[in-house]
Amino acid sequence: MSSLATKFAALSTDNAPGQEVRRSDADIRALMIGEALPGRAVDFSHGDVDAFPPPPDAMERFAEAVRIGGRQAYTEYRGSADIRAELARRLEAFTGAPVSTDAGVIVTPGTQGALFLAMAATVAVGDKVAIVQPDYFANRKLVQFFGGEVVPIAMDYLGGGDGAGLDLSALEAAFVAGAKVFVFSNPNNPTGAVYSQREIGRIADLAKRYGVTVIADQLYSRLCYDGESYTHIRASGLPDEQCVTIMGPSKTESLSGYRLGVAFGAPAIIDRMEKLQAIVSLRAAGYNQAVLRSWFKEPAGWMARRVGEHQGIRDELLAIFAAAGFPTRRPQAGSYLFPTLPALRVAPLDFTRLLRQQANVIVTPGTEFGPHPRSIRLNFSQDRSAALDAARRIVEMVERYRR
Amino acid sequence: MSSLATKFAALSTDNAPGQEVRRSDADIRALMIGEALPGRAVDFSHGDVDAFPPPPDAMERFAEAVRIGGRQAYTEYRGSADIRAELARRLEAFTGAPVSTDAGVIVTPGTQGALFLAMAATVAVGDKVAIVQPDYFANRKLVQFFGGEVVPIAMDYLGGGDGAGLDLSALEAAFVAGAKVFVFSNPNNPTGAVYSQREIGRIADLAKRYGVTVIADQLYSRLCYDGESYTHIRASGLPDEQCVTIMGPSKTESLSGYRLGVAFGAPAIIDRMEKLQAIVSLRAAGYNQAVLRSWFKEPAGWMARRVGEHQGIRDELLAIFAAAGFPTRRPQAGSYLFPTLPALRVAPLDFTRLLRQQANVIVTPGTEFGPHPRSIRLNFSQDRSAALDAARRIVEMVERYRR
Repeated sequence: MSSLATKFAALSTDNAPGQEVRRSDADIRALMIGEALPGRAVDFSHGDVDAFPPPPDAMERFAEAVRIGGRQAYTEYRGSADIRAELARRLEAFTGAPVSTDAGVIVTPGTQGALFLAMAATVAVGDKVAIVQPDYFANRKLVQFFGGEVVPIAMDYLGGGDGAGLDLSALEAAFVAGAKVFVFSNPNNPTGAVYSQREIGRIADLAKRYGVTVIADQLYSRLCYDGESYTHIRASGLPDEQCVTIMGPSKTESLSGYRLGVAFGAPAIIDRMEKLQAIVSLRAAGYNQAVLRSWFKEPAGWMARRVGEHQGIRDELLAIFAAAGFPTRRPQAGSYLFPTLPALRVAPLDFTRLLRQQANVIVTPGTEFGPHPRSIRLNFSQDRSAALDAARRIVEMVERYRR
Repeated sequence: MSSLATKFAALSTDNAPGQEVRRSDADIRALMIGEALPGRAVDFSHGDVDAFPPPPDAMERFAEAVRIGGRQAYTEYRGSADIRAELARRLEAFTGAPVSTDAGVIVTPGTQGALFLAMAATVAVGDKVAIVQPDYFANRKLVQFFGGEVVPIAMDYLGGGDGAGLDLSALEAAFVAGAKVFVFSNPNNPTGAVYSQREIGRIADLAKRYGVTVIADQLYSRLCYDGESYTHIRASGLPDEQCVTIMGPSKTESLSGYRLGVAFGAPAIIDRMEKLQAIVSLRAAGYNQAVLRSWFKEPAGWMARRVGEHQGIRDELLAIFAAAGFPTRRPQAGSYLFPTLPALRVAPLDFTRLLRQQANVIVTPGTEFGPHPRSIRLNFSQDRSAALDAARRIVEMVERYRR
């Protein structure tokens, strides 16, 4: 294969969340056991913004931007200065460390855009990059795309320790071996694990000692459940120039249709990100940027209610999977569940296709997140009763196909 | 410098259109001759969507998408299937060659997004890429970013021949020397030159003979002036698998605030572009995509009026620059003018800064488009009288700083 063919083969999106509709499932019928399981279709590959709608004034902010016209259509590549100023104040309040309006914030098309730019700005050909297993599927693909070398760091997310279960000795070994960048999601996608203060402190210490750049994907850090505490690595003693934090309103706030992300921290990295954004997409859509004005300013009680509703669904789903005997980490934050299924008579990827064809349930295969073929990921930001019914159908399908 | 530092140094956006506000112009006062030239501020670095507003129903389509909710927020990475189907029909009617809904169209965040993905999908490290001089500034930067080698092809846009003036012998020599990709804008950005049928036919023949992939940026191809004819390279005998065409509604239709672009053609390239989009930005913002439903369906007379108004401004600006003795190509399409200025007593980049500081006029330096230090680019999609006044101030400033 040519170098480009190899590069793009590694980027396969055949099993990526949201792409299910492009799969050809013609040959799956031969594997089917039993009849279809009726029930309302549930797409656990992403949250349902109809079940959990955006805050009330998002569309109003957008319409206002359209009325403003040119000034809002053409912002600086890093985003409108007014909006960055508002964001900087709120993000420093939320994370507990200063954010520079002028040098320390960039608005991107979704958090995916921020992650792409941050990795491009820090990973050179041949660089070692420490990646958690399991973690968000794009982390690994981005390292490969930029010609870096993935150094996997295991996370014992079912181990029951005080934190996420990251193998900190392996992380130090990776840093000793020359890893230049550590990228991780916190809360972890797909398990919902939140890193403890001890873990974050240790990661910060190690990164500081070995001069490693940390990219912290904190997309779900506002959706923290009762009794959990969250530690921001950017406020944990790591020098500002070694850390970029990524957030956005696509998940908890259901604003994914507007494609907005924000990266903040190290000015030199943000600067590179802007230079690259100029040739990747120019800027986050101008009018859409205005929707960020209402971010972190939801009506009183809105966020608490949203967290509470998700917590209820989480607990009921955990009960269903516990009764079925599927080992599952109890998410401390976010809306992902990552149950481990028992051994099946069909290949894992075929099982997810059968789930879709027979049970009207879409899940993301565990292999998208690392070497986790027996796991599936569910985004449980869904209509409650539809989600519970769908989870019961998953359990029934597992019984049917159990080895 | 490290390899990343070198890579990002080449991506400098210091003089890129729209970034003027980030420049530090403190030291420019020492160079100033005379007083400020009063007049309404005109930013020729991009079109003025307040002077030329979008078609009436764009915002309505957007609001409709927000009401539809989840299905429109989360589309396939290559864009909503419904919208791609509509686009495929209109783009094949416009360009005169078939477009496959399923395999041959991708919706991107702006045409910049499409250009980035198309180049990433076709340019490997070390590949030679033929680039026109002058041409859109990102073409060159993208080749450099992907580790390719720029092979410049001169265009004698002031020569007065039947077409754009591309040096077709140099193009063939580049192909003979192994260039893998040819990327060009038509109408040309910054000159407004349109390639003749003879030139396009010859480019297609050569690309076919030497197996070169052609990326045709046709962003402005709907804004064609009286008496001009436009030839689509994708309908000129080039095999579909060797050609990707890029368009979008950001310019002529003033929808830049929605950040929408479309690439269509070679299925294998579109497929790679989608795989990469999955890690670059996931998709064009879901709700925004719906705005494409009204593209090519503007109210009767809307486009003719828009073209006519631009043609009027073009002719008046050309008259002002002709009277001043600035050699300027008469644009056949699009809304860019690229006059050549006489020799000045200050450096070209300083002159653009002086224009901004003293005359309230923003232009883009010619060096952004290739080795054209004596030229400046104006996007004349502006309020007519403000644009004419600003052009007169440019002439006056040139007189003041003339060597």
